[in-house]
Amino acid sequence: MANETIITVVGNLTADPELRYTQSGLAVANFTIASTPRTYDRASNEWKDGEALFLRASVWREFAEHVASTLTKGSRVIAQGRLKQRSYETKEGEKRTSIELDIDEIGPSLRYATAQVTRTSSGSGGAGGARSGAPADEPWGASSNAPANSGQQSASGGDVWNTPGSFSDDTPF
Amino acid sequence: MANETIITVVGNLTADPELRYTQSGLAVANFTIASTPRTYDRASNEWKDGEALFLRASVWREFAEHVASTLTKGSRVIAQGRLKQRSYETKEGEKRTSIELDIDEIGPSLRYATAQVTRTSSGSGGAGGARSGAPADEPWGASSNAPANSGQQSASGGDVWNTPGSFSDDTPF
Amino acid sequence: MANETIITVVGNLTADPELRYTQSGLAVANFTIASTPRTYDRASNEWKDGEALFLRASVWREFAEHVASTLTKGSRVIAQGRLKQRSYETKEGEKRTSIELDIDEIGPSLRYATAQVTRTSSGSGGAGGARSGAPADEPWGASSNAPANSGQQSASGGDVWNTPGSFSDDTPF
Amino acid sequence: MANETIITVVGNLTADPELRYTQSGLAVANFTIASTPRTYDRASNEWKDGEALFLRASVWREFAEHVASTLTKGSRVIAQGRLKQRSYETKEGEKRTSIELDIDEIGPSLRYATAQVTRTSSGSGGAGGARSGAPADEPWGASSNAPANSGQQSASGGDVWNTPGSFSDDTPF
Repeated sequence: MANETIITVVGNLTADPELRYTQSGLAVANFTIASTPRTYDRASNEWKDGEALFLRASVWREFAEHVASTLTKGSRVIAQGRLKQRSYETKEGEKRTSIELDIDEIGPSLRYATAQVTRTSSGSGGAGGARSGAPADEPWGASSNAPANSGQQSASGGDVWNTPGSFSDDTPF
Repeated sequence: MANETIITVVGNLTADPELRYTQSGLAVANFTIASTPRTYDRASNEWKDGEALFLRASVWREFAEHVASTLTKGSRVIAQGRLKQRSYETKEGEKRTSIELDIDEIGPSLRYATAQVTRTSSGSGGAGGARSGAPADEPWGASSNAPANSGQQSASGGDVWNTPGSFSDDTPF
Repeated sequence: MANETIITVVGNLTADPELRYTQSGLAVANFTIASTPRTYDRASNEWKDGEALFLRASVWREFAEHVASTLTKGSRVIAQGRLKQRSYETKEGEKRTSIELDIDEIGPSLRYATAQVTRTSSGSGGAGGARSGAPADEPWGASSNAPANSGQQSASGGDVWNTPGSFSDDTPF
Repeated sequence: MANETIITVVGNLTADPELRYTQSGLAVANFTIASTPRTYDRASNEWKDGEALFLRASVWREFAEHVASTLTKGSRVIAQGRLKQRSYETKEGEKRTSIELDIDEIGPSLRYATAQVTRTSSGSGGAGGARSGAPADEPWGASSNAPANSGQQSASGGDVWNTPGSFSDDTPF
């Protein structure tokens, strides 16, 4: 890709990530990051909160499960991704656009926290930096198709994707 | 601050962070992030690693202890900070400059890992986004002045800095 | 300011910048930058355009006049600024939010163009990097209050602001 | 490319760009950008300059000629590119590394200047957003091989690359 608008945002999750699966079994996690700028007020000699920026974000595949099993409402994160504009129509037939973040990398901030990190089996390859953004035209699966307890499994050591045959042949990492 | 050169880097730690303390008791962690770009080679139809970028990084205060107790050699991180140029003289009296990263935010990447996050007590305040860069002209303490087991303490719940009176007068948070 | 979401965008102006003045005489220029990402399609062996991102942008004070007298519809620019969320209400009383770019720095891209640059008198000071974002609660002036030909003057050599007394006491640069 | 370290820098050229040509006729311009951060000093109530960051930068092909014919010593620019580490050996056989900026986009800042922009014919098609970084292993031509007056030609209106038929009809904007 070239000429994408890349952005880094630091903020807090407004709610737990929502983990879903497409019909073809691809995981996606959606959540909102609230980033609050702060200004130093010279008159009062103190920092004041500005108006927050709320960015809707998505992350795909195995990465989505890591996010869903690690982050919760209120988590402070640092995230980098590409700004995407999405056009949609309301029920009333009005056309609107929204700006969202297609995440390339995210982690819990260590500024006010510590973390115990568990590497998953798949991190091995050299495929480290390959883009793995949203697939085009991915139809949504009924939620009943989704592994019901994937979040928990993922948290227990990242063996979710070791199920024979699952996603093994077409994922770039 | 204004007109600083802000950068986000994704890469792996080349070694465990080194945690030290200044004479006045301020913690600082130093480490190097290796970031390897990847190119898609159209001829061979595969991704190839490019030459790595090695960036020396530093992080201060309580934040430094969180980093030291969380990250280890090989950890994949996402970090944002300000590029700083430092001039120094070699033993032979030669003048040189190096470019380093003064970190504002860092976290373990969740791309190939999950994490169990523990918030420390001090994250509470509104001081969330305040810059907490390197203090000017901070003399280095003998290592014997440093709390011997701070890393462990920090990991156990972040109560290291609750000692009455410690650092309370010059830290902005 | 701290913890702001800073972004760099490269794209083309969708129309000429609109230059207006507040009641107190402050200039502001508004325009939209369209940024089109490009993907390399391995199948067809060629680059393809993705969906464009349209970002509404604003720039203030003397800087706004420079933009208005330099850039036109179609101009390719590189711009850096802070993402801001703005809440507003439609005529029908619906609440909406938009994301806009408060510009800190912008210039015509030299990728497909050359330029003849004229420094204005005010660039002298050391105030180079000071933030000069949107003032809070600035009421809009009737357009009749605005200097009618400021764009032209600015283009002719930047002497617009040398008029005695104009803006001299509250601008940071 | 993926996982590159992308950076935006705002600063001033320390000297005129140096324009050279490789043996195969490829243009490259080299220059240094000095970026000076500024801190607000609460005690004295004024902004103070910090230590400058000096970044060596390079730009290639036609783009290099545009830069060389537009920017001069002292020009304030906004530039985006990828940080690259380069290893080299001194005459004394010492190994060293330097960090440089491979520029993707650059323009004269309009903060303290206006500009008259001239589009060149080559805003060509496919190359729009494509990365056009340094070619691998490009041998340097003797300076006598280089078009002697290319800088001037480029400055005179961008007709250097006007070879009939090239790129003229499919500009994306």
